[in-house]
Formats: sequence, structure tokens, C-alpha cells
Amino acid sequence: MPRYKLIVEYDGRGYVGWQRQDNGPSVQAALEAALAPIAGGRVTVLGAGRTDAGVHALGQVAHVDLEPERRPEEVRDSANHHLAEEAVAVLAAERVADDFHARFSAAGRHYRYRILNRRPKPSLERGRVWHVPQPLDAEAMQRAARLLLGRHDFTTFRSSQCQAASPEKTLDALAVARRGDEVVVEAAARSFLHNQVRSMVGSLKLVGEGKWAADDLGRALAAADRAACGPVAPPDGLYLASVDY
Amino acid sequence: MPRYKLIVEYDGRGYVGWQRQDNGPSVQAALEAALAPIAGGRVTVLGAGRTDAGVHALGQVAHVDLEPERRPEEVRDSANHHLAEEAVAVLAAERVADDFHARFSAAGRHYRYRILNRRPKPSLERGRVWHVPQPLDAEAMQRAARLLLGRHDFTTFRSSQCQAASPEKTLDALAVARRGDEVVVEAAARSFLHNQVRSMVGSLKLVGEGKWAADDLGRALAAADRAACGPVAPPDGLYLASVDY
Repeated sequence: MPRYKLIVEYDGRGYVGWQRQDNGPSVQAALEAALAPIAGGRVTVLGAGRTDAGVHALGQVAHVDLEPERRPEEVRDSANHHLAEEAVAVLAAERVADDFHARFSAAGRHYRYRILNRRPKPSLERGRVWHVPQPLDAEAMQRAARLLLGRHDFTTFRSSQCQAASPEKTLDALAVARRGDEVVVEAAARSFLHNQVRSMVGSLKLVGEGKWAADDLGRALAAADRAACGPVAPPDGLYLASVDY
Repeated sequence: MPRYKLIVEYDGRGYVGWQRQDNGPSVQAALEAALAPIAGGRVTVLGAGRTDAGVHALGQVAHVDLEPERRPEEVRDSANHHLAEEAVAVLAAERVADDFHARFSAAGRHYRYRILNRRPKPSLERGRVWHVPQPLDAEAMQRAARLLLGRHDFTTFRSSQCQAASPEKTLDALAVARRGDEVVVEAAARSFLHNQVRSMVGSLKLVGEGKWAADDLGRALAAADRAACGPVAPPDGLYLASVDY
């Protein structure tokens, strides 16, 4: 059956997360409902990353099998037409080989985390940033972030719910930079553990506040103990930015 | 009574506009309610620009008289505390002279208009941009925009509801630029007529689509006739960016 790769953007507020669940609306279910008309029946959409409730995407990737064969633009436009009431958009659709798999073929995932670092609360960016009112030292955060690069046992930065077979992952990039009143963290890896980015950002925030030195972050990593992690950052500021294949 | 200048940011969705009205929640009423506790009673907040329903602000300016005298930071923080459930934030408060008036002392107003110019609908930016799916020629829009600069009778670009004494205004800046998949229009003037920015943007969009030549925009201006205006752009993409004093 013809397979299509979809690039998907969404506002995670109002969804229980990417994955179809019984307890509320999911991005996956919204896409499946929007693609059903063009498929003439039920379809299954599989995503590269199972983002949690409230987490956003600029470039989630998914795949879907649809018959009869359609022009990719037609798949994209039909999906968006049926997504009119949803905070989900299909940015692009592409015909791919039958063995392309959004999740298992992925060679790299890029996440962005936005911290609004100013005293006044957010208004326009409500639900789309983590509001940290106390001043953060982004340069100290950037220096400390380097300690997490490379291959490590990331148990400290892993949700107790994580179902990955191993806590060992290779972190390829973790960059912290100030952009006006935002502190933006960019993270890249082949794959991440559950809550890994939010856990790392929560601990980096302690460094930014001066509550932790860079060495404390290194010790937390070396402990390989979930109890050594700082408070996990909220979902609001997290964006699945792109997926490499 | 001590007077404070406030810089105010808001998401215009969910408000009937800046101005207090009987038919729904306004930004002005939200601010007045949030400042009442620190004033120990009713206060009146006056703004520089009466933004319409759905129009946003990055830097609206308002003034308020409050007794007893407080540190400006205390005014700001107390207001934001009581605005927790609102999409409104006070970015800064400053003690000003008794004759400062947010509206009448203003020497310049800056508006930004964001067009999301891509075929797929917005998801994360829903309600915060005007979605124009057909490709726009931002350079053609920029060239045409120059025809509107300077002092003119802007009757064509003025709402029939406008209460200004004269349709003559001086437009100091009108710049159009592409930023990725957005086309952003920046407009500056001492003051604007009601719906002037949205009316100019609606007509510039016709130029961007190639439906109007620059000369058509010039002729529309010269007609000084509301009927010569293109369809008015929606409030979603409009931001009151800043006010000069």
C-alpha cells in the first residue's frame, strides 16, 4: 500500500499527547480522523516521537499507508481541510518506500526548549514557554551542558515510567543560548529517554539560578539515580523541532 | 495622586478589545480589576490605543493613578499576581508626572502585522497570524507600500466607524519583509485611523498576490473613498508593538 511521510506541527495544549489514549484527545487520533476521508476508511498514523501532554511540535514526523495512491499535496491538503478545528497542521507529505518507518528509521531527533526568563508572567506565550522569573545565567548553563554530551547512562534524567530497554544514550548536542528575554535549549540525539529533555532542562535551570555548580550537574549524571535529578521542567516549553532520516 | 505608566502585553483572543464594554471581557477591565487590590478600590486605566477584539499587544501603554504611593515594581508585580488567569501581563511600571497621559502624550505608535504565508494552515500560531495560503510577493508589497508614506487623506483605509475628526494622517513608516514563511508589515505614525493598519494590509495583500499593481494602491489612496479599499485584514495578525513619548 502506498506509504506517505508527513511533517506535522501542533500546539500540544488541549491534547493528552501524541499517542491515542482513552482519556482525551490525542494528536495521533486527530490525524487519523483527518486522513480517514481520503483513505475511505480507518487508517493508522505512526509518529517518530511520542510527545507528552502539552508538548508541542514544529516538525514531528509520521507515516501512514493510504489507498488508492494520491498526489502527496492532495494528502496534505485533505488532511489540513479536515483538521480545520484542530491545533494540528500537516506541513508536508511525501511518498516514501514501503519500509520507511517514522519511528524506527529515524536517525536523529531535535528538541527545542523555551524558557521565558523575565519577571512578568507570559501572556501571548502562555502555555508555550516555561516561565522562570529569577534571572538565569545562560552562559553558566551552556558550560554545564557540555558535561552531558556523549554516551552516558542517563538514568538520572529518565522518567520512572520510561520503557526503553537501556538507560544508555548518546547526546549529540545540548546548547543553551539567550535570545532576548528567552533562554533557549537545543538538544539532539538519535533518540531520547522518556522525559530526558525536560529532566536535563530542569537541572540546567538550577545551574542557571546558581543553586548548582556545573560540577553538581556532572555528579547528578554520574549518580545514575533518578533522585539526583532537579525538578523536571514542565511540558509547556518543549518542542519536537525536527527528525532526521 | 501618584500616576504610573504601564507597559502591557496581551493576547487579544478572548477579549472584546482594549476598551471596557458591556458585551464581554476587555483588557482594560482586566487591568482595572487587577489593580484594584493595591489601590484599595476602583481605578481607571487609560490606554494609548484602543485595540479591537482579537488584536494583540507587545507594548500597549496605559496610565493609572494609585494611592498611596508604591514602588513601581510593586505595582507591576501586584497587577501580574492578580492577572494570573488572564492573557494580560504588565511588563513594566514607572512613576510619571501628573500630566502624563497614555493617549494624548503619545508621540508615535508602532504596529506589526504578521501574515503566515504558506499553504498549510497555522497550528501553533492559530489566532496570532493571518493565514494567506497563496504565495505573496513581499518585495512588490514593499515597493507599493512606499506610495502610502507621508501625509494623506486616508479615507480609503479608514473604518466607517472611525471617530477621528480628520481623515488626514502622516504615515511615517510602512515596511514589508519576508521572514521565513511569514510576511511581516511594520507601520509607524503619530496616530492611526480606526482599522487603518488592517485596511492597508488588506490592500497590500492584493498587491502581493498580483491582483493589484502598485499603481492600483496609489489610485485607491487618491480616491479617498472607503469603497476603494481591499478586504480588511483580520485582527489575528495585528500587534500594537510600542508607543513613543
